[in-house]
Amino acid sequence: MSNKPSLHTSLSPALVHLYDLSNSIIVIIDVLRATSTIATALYNGARCVIPVDSVTRCIELGKQLSAVTAGERDGKIAEGLEHGNSPFEYPREFIENKTLVLTTTNGTRLLHMALEKGATEIITGSFANLSAVCDHLLAMNRNIVLGCAAWKDRVNLEDALFAGAVIARIGKHFTVNCDSSQIASLLFREAKGDLFGFLKKADASHYHRLMNFGLEKDIRYCLSEDEANVLPRYVDGKLVDANRAEEEK
Amino acid sequence: MSNKPSLHTSLSPALVHLYDLSNSIIVIIDVLRATSTIATALYNGARCVIPVDSVTRCIELGKQLSAVTAGERDGKIAEGLEHGNSPFEYPREFIENKTLVLTTTNGTRLLHMALEKGATEIITGSFANLSAVCDHLLAMNRNIVLGCAAWKDRVNLEDALFAGAVIARIGKHFTVNCDSSQIASLLFREAKGDLFGFLKKADASHYHRLMNFGLEKDIRYCLSEDEANVLPRYVDGKLVDANRAEEEK
Repeated sequence: MSNKPSLHTSLSPALVHLYDLSNSIIVIIDVLRATSTIATALYNGARCVIPVDSVTRCIELGKQLSAVTAGERDGKIAEGLEHGNSPFEYPREFIENKTLVLTTTNGTRLLHMALEKGATEIITGSFANLSAVCDHLLAMNRNIVLGCAAWKDRVNLEDALFAGAVIARIGKHFTVNCDSSQIASLLFREAKGDLFGFLKKADASHYHRLMNFGLEKDIRYCLSEDEANVLPRYVDGKLVDANRAEEEK
Repeated sequence: MSNKPSLHTSLSPALVHLYDLSNSIIVIIDVLRATSTIATALYNGARCVIPVDSVTRCIELGKQLSAVTAGERDGKIAEGLEHGNSPFEYPREFIENKTLVLTTTNGTRLLHMALEKGATEIITGSFANLSAVCDHLLAMNRNIVLGCAAWKDRVNLEDALFAGAVIARIGKHFTVNCDSSQIASLLFREAKGDLFGFLKKADASHYHRLMNFGLEKDIRYCLSEDEANVLPRYVDGKLVDANRAEEEK
């Protein structure tokens, strides 16, 4: 028997209850674009990112904390908020030392589920911070659930691809007895030479949606590795760069 | 805009509520081994197969109908039942003109969900009856949901592979705006030269489980195309060979 910790992939929030989160680190994955934007904002010096599930709550917290509010509905900045979901909206000149309150539906819901289930640790992952996530998971040597935020519970390609990228890097150090992880790995193996081309060819539904909004640049950025290589960890309602928090101690 | 009917893949019963079944044909897929065994029993002349979700109900109906009872729990024939889940237990000499009451957990649960959601038509699919399923779906020209029975709601490779096989044959006649279908297609494309080898290499969890029970022959049969090319359709609580029922009219 292997003593390696386990690694599972949950392809949708509607499947995450199948995995034992209470003894696991969960990586929340919402590649297009929430977790890519979270990594980018923290990389560019945001003090923290507060993920919320509704526009109302976003406005409320924004006022309370004098924070930047952001979120989209149907591809447009949601009414009452100031900014959108694009990582390009959060350069250092703008976001440094600020708090960002971000409303995202899929990722935030999954995060709250993970909280309720008592996950040992909650971090967010995207290609923008792939190495930071993998290094951390290796160092922790704990059970892992790779939690795809998906789209309204429907499995999507890009989140599964990121799960596959993590497994390609660190899978051999874990016990992977999980067909969803095998599927993610196979997808990534097929796609890794050209992630953008892969999503295009498969006519991935979210790729399609964002392309229709003229967001090719966003997609390409969100598929690039280590552009914002921080480790967002959820602590007391906020995502903070765990490595920076450690340095500041 | 395309006027083609839609095709979606539900990778787990826990995801099937995301799709509009009320206007769709659903194909219940439980490759290892329930839907392969159902096709085989009907191909070999069983009058009908009655899927039930518990051993108790199986025993009860078996007595009531003087039917053959079958089902396994943890790889063994369940206590009180006569037969197991292997397609090889149902040759013509044995099953012809008999009624088979089969208890399967994953597939039956999905079937009952489809019933509750008012699916237009419920059929079962497996590699053993791939052509019959595809021919029927093409002829009907209705919306389709390929419903993987999975394993206790966990996505599995073999059911996704079968969905991919169906899409490879008939996908171009449908509107496929569904990442799960794209994933299934990619898996099948990767695997089609050697399905058994593919499951082995991926160490698919269910492959692994059955191999441990010494059931390689079952797996190989369940991955072979058109060995029992009938069309099991669920009508009034029973799965009957729809093509034979049509002839007998």
